[in-house]
Amino acid sequence: MRLCIIGLGGVGASIGLAAKASVELEISGYDIDPDTLASALAQGVIDRPCKTLQACADADLIVLATPPGAIPDCLQALAPHLKPATVLTDVASVKAPVLAWAQASLPYPERFVGGHPIAGTERSGLHAARADLFRDAVWVLTPAERTDADALQQVEAFVRQLKANPLRMDALQHDREFALLSFLPHCVAFSLMALQKENPTQLSGGSSWRDATRVAGSDPALWAELLMLNRDALSPLLQRLQTHLQQIHEWLQQGDITALQAFLKRHRRV
Amino acid sequence: MRLCIIGLGGVGASIGLAAKASVELEISGYDIDPDTLASALAQGVIDRPCKTLQACADADLIVLATPPGAIPDCLQALAPHLKPATVLTDVASVKAPVLAWAQASLPYPERFVGGHPIAGTERSGLHAARADLFRDAVWVLTPAERTDADALQQVEAFVRQLKANPLRMDALQHDREFALLSFLPHCVAFSLMALQKENPTQLSGGSSWRDATRVAGSDPALWAELLMLNRDALSPLLQRLQTHLQQIHEWLQQGDITALQAFLKRHRRV
Repeated sequence: MRLCIIGLGGVGASIGLAAKASVELEISGYDIDPDTLASALAQGVIDRPCKTLQACADADLIVLATPPGAIPDCLQALAPHLKPATVLTDVASVKAPVLAWAQASLPYPERFVGGHPIAGTERSGLHAARADLFRDAVWVLTPAERTDADALQQVEAFVRQLKANPLRMDALQHDREFALLSFLPHCVAFSLMALQKENPTQLSGGSSWRDATRVAGSDPALWAELLMLNRDALSPLLQRLQTHLQQIHEWLQQGDITALQAFLKRHRRV
Repeated sequence: MRLCIIGLGGVGASIGLAAKASVELEISGYDIDPDTLASALAQGVIDRPCKTLQACADADLIVLATPPGAIPDCLQALAPHLKPATVLTDVASVKAPVLAWAQASLPYPERFVGGHPIAGTERSGLHAARADLFRDAVWVLTPAERTDADALQQVEAFVRQLKANPLRMDALQHDREFALLSFLPHCVAFSLMALQKENPTQLSGGSSWRDATRVAGSDPALWAELLMLNRDALSPLLQRLQTHLQQIHEWLQQGDITALQAFLKRHRRV
């Protein structure tokens, strides 16, 4: 099988390393940055560089691992050159918009299977790549109604070869769940960093501060894109979180330790 | 030197284990729960159990490691029996209220040195004790103006023997900084758990969710007390965090990705 990875950042390059470790295939790759492409080749992440997006279209399986904002252009560049059998997937943390783009741009949208490996860290770039990044990770796949069954099975088999566990899920449900599980914590982390800038501290904080702000190390351009793409699911959560924080504030002002303790007890993480 | 630890939960018992590992002293201990006291003795956390608080007063150094709400009663029970030379310290995450209690209750308040080891986790109880809990941790000490210099030096020396790094700091400044660095992240973590209860997810989330909610595993009774004790510093931060979240919400509604990205970039954790 010929695999082509488009976008050789942390996730794309990790797919290359993980695939090399476990699958017999020829891996080509493309990156908009020629230096990244050359480094990926030198570091053995890919076997063969593609000089253009057009040259990627020849693969059996194409993985789009670019920032989500670049996906529409990639799809449009690939579209005229795709074979009917080629399967495409992606790794973006937001799925419904990607499915809509695939639907709008691809000649055979039934060959596109949306994907999202729940792995990776706040670090980004080729140097953050790890061959074991996906080991035992859940890898959400969001087939649409018209998605070909064999395309879905091919992507599932590929994901398993990377040692991850594929999980089928509705794209909108994925986006709603991830708005809570990941996008909201990112908003909180950056907001906490803003608060620290407004209230500089001599202490650097313990593990609670480190954990609460870790994802504020994430790439701002990527996350501005992601938050905007998932705003329909994220916005109500941003408002509801404010309501809870305001409620805590009011209990504190009222000295209502009973209500405060009941809230903490009810929502304790077990 | 005779050390007495009052309160043999995670922090108190870790002090016992750490002291045994590095200091030649006799360690007595007290806990309101007789089973905990017996277990602490059996596990070698202390050398000798005290049956009453009164019996603790005989030590050279007394460490109050109870939940903060129990400190006033402890101080009052100890007060009539204390010798002028005995040094007292505590480990509560909030310092100004503890200093006020010491001032109000102790016959020799100049022998009290407020302390807060920046260590520990969301786990609590004797079974969470670790001899290396304080290794390389910052241990804030908040002497008051009238605190005896030799009492402060004794506590600093003891903290160093536990392998921690003592740091002198004003009590109010400590409380303000910790409202941001720890109390606010706790409020966020419990609020996120409340949101997940309102919006159940099939996915369990990746590391961003795990890190953002870890401290929601903390003891609700302890944290309701702490949040209330530090409400003057915490409340304005709870409101300011809401303002930032609301601002993100508005950028999303306006589709203003430029402003959103500038905010994330400005507050990125480096």
